Amino acid sequence: MSILNGKRAVVTCADIYMGPAITERFRELGAEVLTSESSLLDQASVDTLLEEAGEVDILIANLAGTPHFATVDEIKDEDWFTLCDRLLHPLMRLLRAFVPQMKARRAGKVVAITSAAGLRTVPEMASYSTMRAAQNSLIRTAAVEAARFNVQINAIAQNYVASETYFPEELINNPEFIKQISSVLPTQRIASGSATADLAAFLASDANTHIVGHAVPFAGGWDVMSDLGWDPRALE
Amino acid sequence: MSILNGKRAVVTCADIYMGPAITERFRELGAEVLTSESSLLDQASVDTLLEEAGEVDILIANLAGTPHFATVDEIKDEDWFTLCDRLLHPLMRLLRAFVPQMKARRAGKVVAITSAAGLRTVPEMASYSTMRAAQNSLIRTAAVEAARFNVQINAIAQNYVASETYFPEELINNPEFIKQISSVLPTQRIASGSATADLAAFLASDANTHIVGHAVPFAGGWDVMSDLGWDPRALE
Amino acid sequence: MSILNGKRAVVTCADIYMGPAITERFRELGAEVLTSESSLLDQASVDTLLEEAGEVDILIANLAGTPHFATVDEIKDEDWFTLCDRLLHPLMRLLRAFVPQMKARRAGKVVAITSAAGLRTVPEMASYSTMRAAQNSLIRTAAVEAARFNVQINAIAQNYVASETYFPEELINNPEFIKQISSVLPTQRIASGSATADLAAFLASDANTHIVGHAVPFAGGWDVMSDLGWDPRALE
Amino acid sequence: MSILNGKRAVVTCADIYMGPAITERFRELGAEVLTSESSLLDQASVDTLLEEAGEVDILIANLAGTPHFATVDEIKDEDWFTLCDRLLHPLMRLLRAFVPQMKARRAGKVVAITSAAGLRTVPEMASYSTMRAAQNSLIRTAAVEAARFNVQINAIAQNYVASETYFPEELINNPEFIKQISSVLPTQRIASGSATADLAAFLASDANTHIVGHAVPFAGGWDVMSDLGWDPRALE
Repeated sequence: MSILNGKRAVVTCADIYMGPAITERFRELGAEVLTSESSLLDQASVDTLLEEAGEVDILIANLAGTPHFATVDEIKDEDWFTLCDRLLHPLMRLLRAFVPQMKARRAGKVVAITSAAGLRTVPEMASYSTMRAAQNSLIRTAAVEAARFNVQINAIAQNYVASETYFPEELINNPEFIKQISSVLPTQRIASGSATADLAAFLASDANTHIVGHAVPFAGGWDVMSDLGWDPRALE
Repeated sequence: MSILNGKRAVVTCADIYMGPAITERFRELGAEVLTSESSLLDQASVDTLLEEAGEVDILIANLAGTPHFATVDEIKDEDWFTLCDRLLHPLMRLLRAFVPQMKARRAGKVVAITSAAGLRTVPEMASYSTMRAAQNSLIRTAAVEAARFNVQINAIAQNYVASETYFPEELINNPEFIKQISSVLPTQRIASGSATADLAAFLASDANTHIVGHAVPFAGGWDVMSDLGWDPRALE
Repeated sequence: MSILNGKRAVVTCADIYMGPAITERFRELGAEVLTSESSLLDQASVDTLLEEAGEVDILIANLAGTPHFATVDEIKDEDWFTLCDRLLHPLMRLLRAFVPQMKARRAGKVVAITSAAGLRTVPEMASYSTMRAAQNSLIRTAAVEAARFNVQINAIAQNYVASETYFPEELINNPEFIKQISSVLPTQRIASGSATADLAAFLASDANTHIVGHAVPFAGGWDVMSDLGWDPRALE
Repeated sequence: MSILNGKRAVVTCADIYMGPAITERFRELGAEVLTSESSLLDQASVDTLLEEAGEVDILIANLAGTPHFATVDEIKDEDWFTLCDRLLHPLMRLLRAFVPQMKARRAGKVVAITSAAGLRTVPEMASYSTMRAAQNSLIRTAAVEAARFNVQINAIAQNYVASETYFPEELINNPEFIKQISSVLPTQRIASGSATADLAAFLASDANTHIVGHAVPFAGGWDVMSDLGWDPRALE
């Protein structure tokens, strides 16, 4: 299989979050992948990346930040502004840098790796959810603007992945922990990194012509299911 | 307070679901309320209601049906088609019957009492959720068509209410049960019937000029919150 | 490319809507495809299909119905109930028939071809939108129930496709018409049938392990974009 | 009518956006209203406001910023960061400052005035939409955390209002402009400021016990309606 044959892709934050899994899979699928390990905390680092990468067919905007759990009352400035710097601002700068060349060539794909936390609400995750929701919104606007130039921009609203670059090592290797988080997913198991990468590859391939501005939930159904709180068979 | 002074309202299925609470509160708020206890299972019963009611300022489309819990594999035809008959078809017939007079008079309000089950997904509730989601969609289209005639059509996406017409008596008077269902609501308590009625009154009052086609979640935050499945402080 | 190699798929309503495009593409991608041209208007026809098909790896629940444009005031019973019969009831019966064998085998994929009309609101399309929204909801519940058995159930919320089985021949061959409908899509062009089929193939392939209960918008961005109504540069 | 009798409310940015309309109406409805004209651009100004206001029953988080229309390619740093400063950061700081006292007293209401632009996608409005979507998400998390303390936090996702503090004077007094923007609303007319204020008053009143974490669309149906692009009667 070679759906990415001949494509040049850049993967940001390639050493963390979904970076390693996507890089590996994209190469298997035929892409030439340029990896960047910069956290892209300022405009200069985005400028440098653009200069190094030049024209690319595919931008994987993989941006990561550690959620620090706190109620809104207790949000620390440092955590809030760090997530702005790691998730929100670099996505704007990446789109601003890479989309114009794609529009000019009338071809290109962007896949942002965001989070299902941006679709739903989890107590004590305000900072993280807010930035992920903001990313999903930004992707939508960039996408409707670029669509007429045959540039497709989308996101993957990711949750739990069995990867040492997604969870800290002590958690991902803890069977109790894996069992516990799996229990809130309708699938009852968490995803592999390569499964996210396969979705990213589909969205980045020539086959994708009409998915525009969408954050595809990749969450094992976690984002749609709610708990009734009781056993309804008691009624019957 | 008298925000419904001088308004003629019809409340359907007035003896069940949110009917009694809305009828009582609307009268307190000054409305003349016509109550119908028909289940509106056919066109003739809707025709009869329209004839009896004549022109009304407010239609409360309160339609109820009992969810029978079953996986999709085990849905019984009888349960599926009964919910079509009790929830889906009568809402279409009520809108078709009552909206034209409102459009002609350039004034009118419709509030459908639907369910938060139509916004979310609960295992073994497919039939019920499907019909409630269908109602929410139907309300949207009716609303965007009627808005230019100064007719506002909306829904309340209701969940748990402390009322003997919402839950069977043996459940609503069971403190263990109430505690259990309250535990899945961010509010940690279920709503009173009069609180839903107050929202219905606001949506049906002259004050509401620009909420159009919306199913207002009235669910104590149940519809937005998701469970992470673990205690994130383990990380810190 | 052969991502569907060795898979047995059944495509319903194979002669209309997305049926021909999906059948053709799935065969190219290696699947053995059983096609049914039945409209599945009753339980007997679903039973017959199940008997003929036996165990399948993939169910493409492609159901179609003609929207008859009318305001809610003017909905005709015949149009409403025909769409119930063509879109809503057969999807329930198909899921009820085919999902148990998939759950038993711990493997299977369902892709329902629904419509972006079920995500949004278009005046005079109440009947059609309502049934499509109902389908999307039904898919969600079926999906969260089946996910733990490694069965992934999703939908494609389709809009305009350049196909003679999607639009009547006189429209699809009318360049003025194509130009007009393209103008409301951010892409400024409508999709090919094979592009939908490629998305269906991805959702039906082994690669898809964690997309659950989702109606993927396949609409060129139509579902996310709204019109401001003025040229904001007037302000600047 | 006096649904806000005896309530102490603080209205931020009271001289712009929905501030004047809410202040006026809340006073008519019996509230004691403290107005702040600070733009709340830093923590010190929020601290000062909290000190001046002390304990309040109601916080109206009315935050405004001017959208500068630009494609994502052409976003100016100054515009992006100004909207972060005016919309995103002050909402976090306001919630962090005012919610703890409400939780401690087991009573309180917050209504954030956000925008329907945060629910939908409009080309060339990326910065503004992103910040408004972020606000809506932040409100959801704050709300699910505070709900168990009987504190209800919601937003109004506002669009066009006939007010000189919403639109620049030259636009709001231009009948051609009003006609043009009205044409994209199902209502075919824009809202009055007092109608938004009535919704804010309802959400801030004791009557609201179970609406939690919701951004109520107040947009005349603009957020739900989409354009088909053709006259479907051509088919019939």
